[in-house]
Formats: sequence, structure tokens, C-alpha cells
Amino acid sequence: MSAPVNPPPRLLMGPGPINADPRVLRAMSAQLVGQYDPAMTAYMTETMALYREVFRTANEQTFLVDGTSRAGIEAALVSLLEPGDRVLVPVFGRFGHLLVEIAERCGAEVHTVDVPWGEVVEPEQVEAAVAAVRPKVVAVVQGDTSTTMCQPLADLGEICRRHDALLYCDATASLGGNPFEADAWGLDVATAGLQKCLGGPSGSAPITISDRAVALIEGRKHVEAGIREEQDAARGTRIASNYLDLAQVMDYWGPRRLNHHTEATTMLYGARECARLLVEEGLEAAVARHALHGRAMLEGVRGLGLTVFGDVAHKMHNVVAVEIPDGVDGDATRGALLEDFGIEIGTSFGPLHGRVWRIGTMGHNARRDAVLTTLAALEQVLRAAGAPVTAGGGVGAAREVYA
Amino acid sequence: MSAPVNPPPRLLMGPGPINADPRVLRAMSAQLVGQYDPAMTAYMTETMALYREVFRTANEQTFLVDGTSRAGIEAALVSLLEPGDRVLVPVFGRFGHLLVEIAERCGAEVHTVDVPWGEVVEPEQVEAAVAAVRPKVVAVVQGDTSTTMCQPLADLGEICRRHDALLYCDATASLGGNPFEADAWGLDVATAGLQKCLGGPSGSAPITISDRAVALIEGRKHVEAGIREEQDAARGTRIASNYLDLAQVMDYWGPRRLNHHTEATTMLYGARECARLLVEEGLEAAVARHALHGRAMLEGVRGLGLTVFGDVAHKMHNVVAVEIPDGVDGDATRGALLEDFGIEIGTSFGPLHGRVWRIGTMGHNARRDAVLTTLAALEQVLRAAGAPVTAGGGVGAAREVYA
Repeated sequence: MSAPVNPPPRLLMGPGPINADPRVLRAMSAQLVGQYDPAMTAYMTETMALYREVFRTANEQTFLVDGTSRAGIEAALVSLLEPGDRVLVPVFGRFGHLLVEIAERCGAEVHTVDVPWGEVVEPEQVEAAVAAVRPKVVAVVQGDTSTTMCQPLADLGEICRRHDALLYCDATASLGGNPFEADAWGLDVATAGLQKCLGGPSGSAPITISDRAVALIEGRKHVEAGIREEQDAARGTRIASNYLDLAQVMDYWGPRRLNHHTEATTMLYGARECARLLVEEGLEAAVARHALHGRAMLEGVRGLGLTVFGDVAHKMHNVVAVEIPDGVDGDATRGALLEDFGIEIGTSFGPLHGRVWRIGTMGHNARRDAVLTTLAALEQVLRAAGAPVTAGGGVGAAREVYA
Repeated sequence: MSAPVNPPPRLLMGPGPINADPRVLRAMSAQLVGQYDPAMTAYMTETMALYREVFRTANEQTFLVDGTSRAGIEAALVSLLEPGDRVLVPVFGRFGHLLVEIAERCGAEVHTVDVPWGEVVEPEQVEAAVAAVRPKVVAVVQGDTSTTMCQPLADLGEICRRHDALLYCDATASLGGNPFEADAWGLDVATAGLQKCLGGPSGSAPITISDRAVALIEGRKHVEAGIREEQDAARGTRIASNYLDLAQVMDYWGPRRLNHHTEATTMLYGARECARLLVEEGLEAAVARHALHGRAMLEGVRGLGLTVFGDVAHKMHNVVAVEIPDGVDGDATRGALLEDFGIEIGTSFGPLHGRVWRIGTMGHNARRDAVLTTLAALEQVLRAAGAPVTAGGGVGAAREVYA
């Protein structure tokens, strides 16, 4: 017989998931209510309002998709895209490839703007490609943890409107830890997850949808048989997914409360608490906290004599990629850090696999004690692995940032 | 500012979700670990083994889909079906319509066998339709909460094998509370959810897949760009969803641990504890418990003078549909039950809307005190609504079942 769940104590300092804020776990231990209980519908409505603050938007259609962040991405793309539609994806890391992959599975004709891993895409490159491709949707990742880069978005909304394209953004890795302005930047759809700067577990995907994207999605509404009423004449091309059909999910969260899935109540409790934490702290304060602890970690790893990967000017606040020193076995050293200190840092994907570690400072773990403890332990495992390290150099450099 | 989550006390006696077992909520309050932490991969492997016991199968490919039960259904159908494939769906309630709806969105050519709500489908009807349609997949609901019916499945696997069709079953509403035998009945794919007899919250969908269904799905594997390796040549027609692509999800749960979504750790802790509870109790004992309390509720509502809807010989153990007495406002009476007693019972869909209430006895709430309390309260609200009720008749009849 298996034993009760009793995970070992870990300090999760990788690119996410990170330790959940204890307040989020406490919220998730609350008992369930029925899906149309007045208490439940009130929690749903409050959650919509809270995520409007998190996304910095007035969009009425702001709610949760019941799945991991990837479910949110697919819900957005499958609800916007019809077979044959053109999509433009700026690719600067693994999660750009994911947007390509998902858009292709929607039957879209996908075009990319590619830059080397470790860089971001210039607005001029995007505009030239938009003018050439004339896409229905531009789909872009804000923060790509595979490279740590944070794509500037402020100019893209205006470019898209000028060329009559919709702008979708995957903000999973960045939201809450880096500036994000859904409305000011002219984003049409943005999605996220809880397991990064929001300090919760994976499994719920906040989403916000502009009125013009809502109009497009509503134009494809096919209410399912069994609950369809006379007013529900089918419109446009049916969305290829039922589960991720945002037209129906909006009717479930909206005043009509039209039955769709059974809301994942415990995940909703958690998502709601993640947003409450951020709103209580203040979005600007949360971003400043991520900036501070991210800078401390950056200077700390440099203080240990390590080299940082990528264009640091465009690095997300909440994660840094560190080149594995010559002669050091990256996975064995990560293993020692986990085994001896209970600290997890991340490996990497694709062209960076075996070349860099990724170290996060996000959500509940964007904290001084988490940063200093990680740097102190990293010094020890690097020394044990035979790498040249400056004694006290990591903690010392981080302390200077905090001073 | 919104307040911390603090749901009102409710006894959830509808068709689900029901109150989560407190052990499940405690498991879900455990702190996270990294997605490739040895503790996490061990939990994943244990969860696979536990759900093999729950589904009564030796299928290696038994795991969780990260979404509600509907995500599990769609994962199964979108991974099995290609555009133009023929599917046969026996429809005996709302969730049969849902299978039709999802299969249609997969581009399948969908045929149905329809019976009136309140009945089940005879194996001979299924066989005749299979012979005529020659479907690739027969997709059937075991327990349809919209009508309370439990479709006999024991003969369908053999029929499907004889006609070279795969058999998919949605066991969301029935699993754990009614006999279910994935292997003995020759099921190829079965999916479920936690929010019914398993005693957990919605948000995770256990699935099991037979070797012949695995072979079909593996024949459509397209590992996504960014993590694809040389061995990963694309095969067959690409599955139309990335998130619900079981070929990739199997590689994530399997020994290769190929990155896909970020596992919803807290939901996994909950799903694991749901299965531990069932396996500890014993599957036969759990089914017998649901049979006992379901019979007590059935005789109880009859003892109150109410009429039961549908073919009681084929009723699921865990839910009963009760005709709303003439002159009684169904929704107002349900509201009084919630307001005055904190007890929720269910409304209904489609042709039964406004005609019946649905009362559940499942999971953690398949208990004597929950049954008797519900019957006592129902007597009071019916009397207040002016319906003729036998004083003490409900509790008395249920007590006789327990005696």
C-alpha cells in the first residue's frame, strides 16, 4: 500500500514550478460547494475581477481555463484560429516553438520570425513580417524560460492594430514578476499559469480576452446539444475543441452560467488566492520585488565567478541562465544541490541542454533568504565539483544588491 | 478587497460535485516538489498503479489528464479519431450527446443509437448498429447522471472486438460506485473524474488505455519542436490537439519523462489520495457501500411518497432522479433546502428540466448520516411547499434498508 503524500522539503529555485505560497495551499484545503451555489458563483465573479487587476485590463472576459498554462494557450489559439488562417509567431526560445506547434495543430498557416536563443525580437522585425504575411493573429511569448528572455511588447499591439491582426500573448512565465499591461499594450488575448510568479500550483490558466477577440470568438459559437436552446443558432466555423471552446466557457462564467465543464473548484480557490496575494501586495510592488531578488541572484552568480547566458538587458526578472563551468557535470551538480541542500535549480532544453542551468527567483520564492541560501549552497556544490569559485562571492554580491 | 476563501458549510447531495473527502483535501495542502524530483516521479508512478486497481486493468498506460473529466473524454477521442473516421455513440442522456459533440469536433462521422431518456441500450441494438456503421470507435457513457441510468457494458467489448472497433467508455459518474471492469469487459480506453464517487474535486481526469489503443495512438506521434530528438520521426496523422495529445502525454508519464505540460501537482496529490481511499476500502466494498446508501435513498424518497424517474433496474447506485410533485416549484424548493438546511440537491437538463430533481449518494457522502439528514430535510421542505408527504416516511423507509 502506498503511503500518504508527504513530499520532502524542497526549496524550488528552478524556472518553475516553485513552492506555492502557504496561503494558496490553505485556500485549496477549503471544502467544496456546488458549481451553481451562490457562494461559488460569487467566487467565480471575484476571481474574474481579481485577474482583471493582475492582467491590468478592463476586459469583461477574464476568467480561468481549467488546465495547465498550456491549456490556456491552446484555448486561445483554437478559439481564434480556423484552418487556413495565417499566424505569425516571433520565436526566441522553446515556448515560441510551442505556439507554432499548437497553431499548426489548429490547421493554421504558420509563419515565424526567428532570432537566436538569448535574444529578443525587434518591433521592426515583427512589423516587416506582419506586413509581408498579413496574419490574422500574431502570437508571442512574453517571457520564455528556456532562454530567460522577456520580449518587449509595448509596440506590438499598435503594429497589430495598424495591420488588422489580433495579438495573443503567453505570459505564463512572466506575469506578476515583470511589467505587464494587457490594455495599455493593446493585447487581445493573454494567458498565464499559476506556477511561476503567481505562487501557486500548475493546473489553472488565467485568461483575458479583449472585446474584439470576444466578437470573433462569439461569431463561432455552437452551443452543444443537450443544453442548446432556441436562441443558440450555430454561428461560423465550429471551434475544433469542445473543452477549450472559449465561446462556451464564456457562457459558463458569464451571467447565463450555461453548463460546460464542472469547474475545478479547488484550483479556483488556489487561483483566486494567488491573485489576492498579488493585488494585496500591489502589482508594481510585486514586480519591484522580483526585480530586486532577480538582480541579487544575477549579481550573486556573477560573484561566484559564473557567466550569465543571454542578453541580460532583456532578461526576465524572475529567472537567470548560468553557464555550467567547464569540467563540471551539470546534472550531477544539480543532484548534489537537491540531495545535500534540498534546493532545486533547473536544467535546460534544446540548444542549451547541458550548457546552462536556470535559476529562478519567483513568486513565494522571490525572497532574500531563498536567494542567499541558494547562493551559499551553490558555492559549496561548485567547490565540491572542482570549479573555481570565489569564497563568499555569491552571497557577498547579493548582499551588496540588498544593501 | 475580497475576503479569504471561506465557503459556507454544505452537504452536497446532488449529482456531483460532492463534498471532497477530508483526507483528499489534506493531501492537496501538501507543498509542491519539482516536476522531475524523484519524489514527484515516484508519486506519478504510484498514481498509475493505484488507478490500475481502480479501473481494474493491467494497462501500463494508466495516468491522469490535467483537466476536468471532459478533458479526459476529449483527450481520448481526439487521440483516437482522425477526420472522416466513423464513430458510433449509444445516446441515452446528455452525456451521450456530449460524446457526439466532441467526436464531431474531431471531424469524425458520428452515428448514434438513441433510446428515450430513462432507458439503457440493449447490446443487440449496439451490435446491429456496429454491423451497419462499421465504426472505428464505439464511444459510450457508463453512467449518465442526466437520467441516472447505468449502461451495461459487459457485452460491448466482445461485440467491438468481433467487428474490429475500439471501445471507449466515459466512466466519470459511475467509477468507484458501480461495478467497472476495464479488462474483463474489453474496454480500450476509459476516462473518469474525481468529483463523483471518487470523493475529490473536479480538475483531474484518470484515464486507462489498452495496448491496442496505445498502438493506434503511438502511430500518430509527433513530438513537438523544441524537444524533438532524432528518434522522434513524425508518424501518421498528427493529433489535432497538443494539450490533449495522449501520445505525448504517455511519454511524459512514461520512462522517457519527455517534457509536455507542467504536471498539476496539487491535483495529482488529490487524485492519488482518492485512489488510495478506494483501494484501502476495497473496490467491491466501495461499490457495496454505494449500493446500500443508494438503495436507502431510493426507498427513502419513495417512502416520502415521491415517484422515481427511469428504469430503476438500470439506475446507477449513486444517484436517483425524483419527479417533482405537481404544484411544487422545483427550484424554490431546492433553494429552501440549501438555505435552511445547507443541503444541495440537483436540478436537471434538457427534457427533464423542471420535471425531476437528482439526488446523489456518492463518494464521501455515501453515508448513513448524509442519507437520513437529507431525507429528514426533504420532508420538511416538501411539507412547507404544500406537497403531500408521509411524516417520517422517508427516514423510516431508509432505516428499514439499513436494518
